Amino acid sequence: MTQLSVRAEDVVRRLHAVRRNAPLVQCITNTVVQNVTANALLALGASPAMTDIVGESGPFARIASGLLVNLGTPTPEQRDAAQEAVAEAQRTQTPWVLDPVAIGALPIRTALAHDLAGRRPAAIRGNASEIAVLAGSGDGGRGTDSSAEVDVVLPAAQDLARRTHAIVAVSGPVDAVTDGERTVRIANGTDLLTRITGGGCALGAAIAAFLGADRDTDRLIVVSSAIAAYTIAAEIAAEDSEGPGSFQVRFLDALFALDATEIVDRIRTEVAR
Amino acid sequence: MTQLSVRAEDVVRRLHAVRRNAPLVQCITNTVVQNVTANALLALGASPAMTDIVGESGPFARIASGLLVNLGTPTPEQRDAAQEAVAEAQRTQTPWVLDPVAIGALPIRTALAHDLAGRRPAAIRGNASEIAVLAGSGDGGRGTDSSAEVDVVLPAAQDLARRTHAIVAVSGPVDAVTDGERTVRIANGTDLLTRITGGGCALGAAIAAFLGADRDTDRLIVVSSAIAAYTIAAEIAAEDSEGPGSFQVRFLDALFALDATEIVDRIRTEVAR
Amino acid sequence: MTQLSVRAEDVVRRLHAVRRNAPLVQCITNTVVQNVTANALLALGASPAMTDIVGESGPFARIASGLLVNLGTPTPEQRDAAQEAVAEAQRTQTPWVLDPVAIGALPIRTALAHDLAGRRPAAIRGNASEIAVLAGSGDGGRGTDSSAEVDVVLPAAQDLARRTHAIVAVSGPVDAVTDGERTVRIANGTDLLTRITGGGCALGAAIAAFLGADRDTDRLIVVSSAIAAYTIAAEIAAEDSEGPGSFQVRFLDALFALDATEIVDRIRTEVAR
Repeated sequence: MTQLSVRAEDVVRRLHAVRRNAPLVQCITNTVVQNVTANALLALGASPAMTDIVGESGPFARIASGLLVNLGTPTPEQRDAAQEAVAEAQRTQTPWVLDPVAIGALPIRTALAHDLAGRRPAAIRGNASEIAVLAGSGDGGRGTDSSAEVDVVLPAAQDLARRTHAIVAVSGPVDAVTDGERTVRIANGTDLLTRITGGGCALGAAIAAFLGADRDTDRLIVVSSAIAAYTIAAEIAAEDSEGPGSFQVRFLDALFALDATEIVDRIRTEVAR
Repeated sequence: MTQLSVRAEDVVRRLHAVRRNAPLVQCITNTVVQNVTANALLALGASPAMTDIVGESGPFARIASGLLVNLGTPTPEQRDAAQEAVAEAQRTQTPWVLDPVAIGALPIRTALAHDLAGRRPAAIRGNASEIAVLAGSGDGGRGTDSSAEVDVVLPAAQDLARRTHAIVAVSGPVDAVTDGERTVRIANGTDLLTRITGGGCALGAAIAAFLGADRDTDRLIVVSSAIAAYTIAAEIAAEDSEGPGSFQVRFLDALFALDATEIVDRIRTEVAR
Repeated sequence: MTQLSVRAEDVVRRLHAVRRNAPLVQCITNTVVQNVTANALLALGASPAMTDIVGESGPFARIASGLLVNLGTPTPEQRDAAQEAVAEAQRTQTPWVLDPVAIGALPIRTALAHDLAGRRPAAIRGNASEIAVLAGSGDGGRGTDSSAEVDVVLPAAQDLARRTHAIVAVSGPVDAVTDGERTVRIANGTDLLTRITGGGCALGAAIAAFLGADRDTDRLIVVSSAIAAYTIAAEIAAEDSEGPGSFQVRFLDALFALDATEIVDRIRTEVAR
């Protein structure tokens, strides 16, 4: 297994691509986090569209730059809309991201996640429990909490990446990102991201934005850059926060204002063992 | 075409009517912005109710002071609920506002918007692309972004106003509001309104609140007053903001605290060419 | 009727139980307030899950520590999911909270609320109008506004508590909480809670969290403790706020940081007449 780092200049270049291209990011995501997801995308410079109904999600996937499918509140309408959008994304090679929220204990989303994982997502993002379930090596955590550890699940994540050809990103205190051969670890972030709802879900959308803004670069670098930019902004926001309320406000401000100097000063990419 | 201004005292009087009457505003709106829409209405002094299910949206339209129909996430349930509410609003002459979000590329909402536009909305609010599509002179932007200019679309907006008998409001750097004969331009606002989700959608609800609080005044004045109050509050909020996160917080505070002096000092009503 | 107080130490102990046990709280709640509800639960130290679809809400109720059923936007899917979850909660004796939002004028939710009230909720929370309707002694307010007074509705609330075996909490300037025999009044809080959407709805979720974290204590004490902690945090947040926007932010921070000293200093439990 080859190890590598993601350099600050990679992150800066990918962030500038998002701001320059304003990728249109279609989000089929849970109703709890639609608002914060749209606001995070706008703060990054992307253009969000929560187009998630049958009859419109397919046509929209044709014009979108990237697509997020998040399974947090998978109503029948959203499930059908997800299938429609993914079929179109596959046909047009629009990069799409799968976020298998809380799979394991919940039967409907678990079956859907397994189905969708086989349909060529560009990236899969989840916590350790969710990735373990999708890889077939775990039975899930409690809701969106993760009872598993990133390091423990890494071999399963690598196997999942090889089987699905997706970049697999495992969120945790240190994030791990793998294409099955190479693995990047990113040690930026803050515990406060776990004390607001949507901290992980909006990251899935950010990954879709970065993939949609730059289809030429190595996808492992692009996904890692999205995670580094997002978690560095969160780190900045946490420093002046008095709790999750002020953190959420400052986080949007920090995503909006994030600059090259901050990225250079703060990036912490660990080399895996 | 007659030109006119909306004076600060018009805006102050209409805002006081909202605060005094606390109009009950029914919102059938997209799930992304329900929260910020309800909070903007509460900050203005109105009483929001997101009653959007079949079997309840009609009965509620009977007791509501105003109704918003926003097509941002038009599930089958919401589409049927919108038809039910609009039928009742027509019957009881409850003023209702149509916001044709992202019509053009998306077939279901586009057909629904054309249908509803013929059912006597008191006002129609959209960006230039959306108004162009509804007027039959454009094919839409990309999602909620507008690729068209307010000035270019104005003749189409005037034509739409004449055909539908609605006040048509086109949002942009300078907003244009027309009844088909007269046109008001309002130059207040801030770019930050386009960097949060719901900046336009909540304005549609504010228009419904102003119309619901004051049925006696010239509707062109009422709709223009709603836009002026809303965009002046946004302008105040932007001055102290460090980004879209803090802007959103301050915007609700500014709507809540907006007073006559601020309106007098800041209102910028342009006379059209 | 026996009167009693809830002491600061009761509230502190129950709050610590929530933070220590991180109860998994399933919320079937309206889409307007899902985000603020999840964030309030996270700030308190609970673990929210908005699992509200048919086929998953029952299985999730089995593993949840507490359940909230809020009728604010009762789509057909949510109504069926609520029935499924409540059936499972009854079977497994998971404490569940009913919040009959805006019943009275709206036929579907009114019928559903009457049905669910008979299925052994651990607690029922509403404003005076909603509790009056559920108790059969009123015909409802306007949406989520309350046109009735807490004191006037108290006998009906006590009767409802006796009939349903639920703790009934009536929200207002002074909250009243009753098991039918004993009544606690809590005079903490701020008017700003009525100027943001979800101020009452998130309280329903907090009650479910407190009940889920501590099944051994007298339920009247647990529900009263949840209300005291929640309204004391709101009171703290209101002091530094410039309006509803900054209030909402500070409220999440205050829930997160709430400590024993603040509770001791501020608690105002009135003895009923």
